[in-house]
Amino acid sequence: MPSPQNPVRALVIYAHPEPTSFCAALKDAAIAVLERAGLTVEVSDLYAERFDPVGGRRDFVGKADPARFHYQTEQLTAWKNQTFSPEIQREQERVSRADLFIFVFPLWWGGVPAILKGWFDRVLAYGFAYADGRRYEHGYFNGKRGVLAISTGGTEHRFSEGGSYGPVSSVLHGVQHCMLEYLGLETAQPFVAYATPRVSEEQRTQFLREWQERLVDIATDPDWVESLRRPNVARGAMGAPVVGGEWAKMK
Amino acid sequence: MPSPQNPVRALVIYAHPEPTSFCAALKDAAIAVLERAGLTVEVSDLYAERFDPVGGRRDFVGKADPARFHYQTEQLTAWKNQTFSPEIQREQERVSRADLFIFVFPLWWGGVPAILKGWFDRVLAYGFAYADGRRYEHGYFNGKRGVLAISTGGTEHRFSEGGSYGPVSSVLHGVQHCMLEYLGLETAQPFVAYATPRVSEEQRTQFLREWQERLVDIATDPDWVESLRRPNVARGAMGAPVVGGEWAKMK
Repeated sequence: MPSPQNPVRALVIYAHPEPTSFCAALKDAAIAVLERAGLTVEVSDLYAERFDPVGGRRDFVGKADPARFHYQTEQLTAWKNQTFSPEIQREQERVSRADLFIFVFPLWWGGVPAILKGWFDRVLAYGFAYADGRRYEHGYFNGKRGVLAISTGGTEHRFSEGGSYGPVSSVLHGVQHCMLEYLGLETAQPFVAYATPRVSEEQRTQFLREWQERLVDIATDPDWVESLRRPNVARGAMGAPVVGGEWAKMK
Repeated sequence: MPSPQNPVRALVIYAHPEPTSFCAALKDAAIAVLERAGLTVEVSDLYAERFDPVGGRRDFVGKADPARFHYQTEQLTAWKNQTFSPEIQREQERVSRADLFIFVFPLWWGGVPAILKGWFDRVLAYGFAYADGRRYEHGYFNGKRGVLAISTGGTEHRFSEGGSYGPVSSVLHGVQHCMLEYLGLETAQPFVAYATPRVSEEQRTQFLREWQERLVDIATDPDWVESLRRPNVARGAMGAPVVGGEWAKMK
């Protein structure tokens, strides 16, 4: 239940190798504005923490089937037995604590960098993050919010109807719809800072200001914050055994 | 110039951790049918070869700017100076040799597994695979062909208009349009084997047969094979310094 003693919690998932990049500035701007607004902010800094994105046997300390690797079978077993690798467990705990998910990354090849794709592949495991019948409007993350913050090399024109990449909504369909909305997150419009390597310092400053304004609106929307007080709507909705248990212990 | 002495060359980029998976069967079926049709086939087996998908400093043995990492700047410098890491060089040499690119992978979170995303991020570097003004219809890969072969957990209905994921063309826009077509590849319709874990053995056999028929049509289309004889249209079109040189040496 959000309150000064128990604020709304944000998780920033950040995927850029260079600490002086514009993406890093987007990440720092997010942390600053959210903390100023009274939220608790955690950061998964995938490059700095050397996150391993290659999904497979190393996600787990146990094996459901030693003879044949079927990813979802192993994930479900690991979820039931709590046999995820320490790295995956740490990330799942961060995910379990969060009300608001902020993904900050450069657009590479029309999508997320591999290190962030692997965070989805590995951390958001079957059983933990979704299940049969628990997707989209029935997803475990219903009531929580998610937003993308992206820097691109290409100009806005390229991401428009008739532009070479197609509308930005088409380019991001795989991320916005098949990843965030799949989880059940209520998504905001992606924040896209176009052509950041080529625009002026003023434009970059303007991007950061707009991003902060947008983000604080998302994070402090009174109706949404109020909705987080309803049990089993947002907080604790991911009501599978351990997350619920962990969450309960934390309060 | 394709001929019995110099056949059309295919590169299969394969990304699944389990050798008994249906994806492995799609990969093996591709190799078999192409070799039977007289092509030369190479395979980048990303999991078996332990491909590292995390783009960054380790892509390079040199540094354009030791103080600040800007990916495309480092890629362009590495391309000019041939200072890519051995792993990236090996993959770029495979790419340079190929006329036909076949991507075989399971659809995870609406897209390619992280290990394959990282292959794009790292191997298909600025300078080597594209440049300003060398994208899409002007791309270095013009005249070459590319096709996706995908296994999904979800049923075909989910990937339709009104289905929960949206039309498969929307789901795959990021891969098909922003990756393959971006390079300049002439793309075929993606081959999608839906719900492979849930369908009958007969259906799986049928998928493999359809995939082989589709693929051999793409690979042996006489007009296309003929077009490969034209210099600077397909083979050698990626005419940047070293690839051209390497290619010339190989003939």
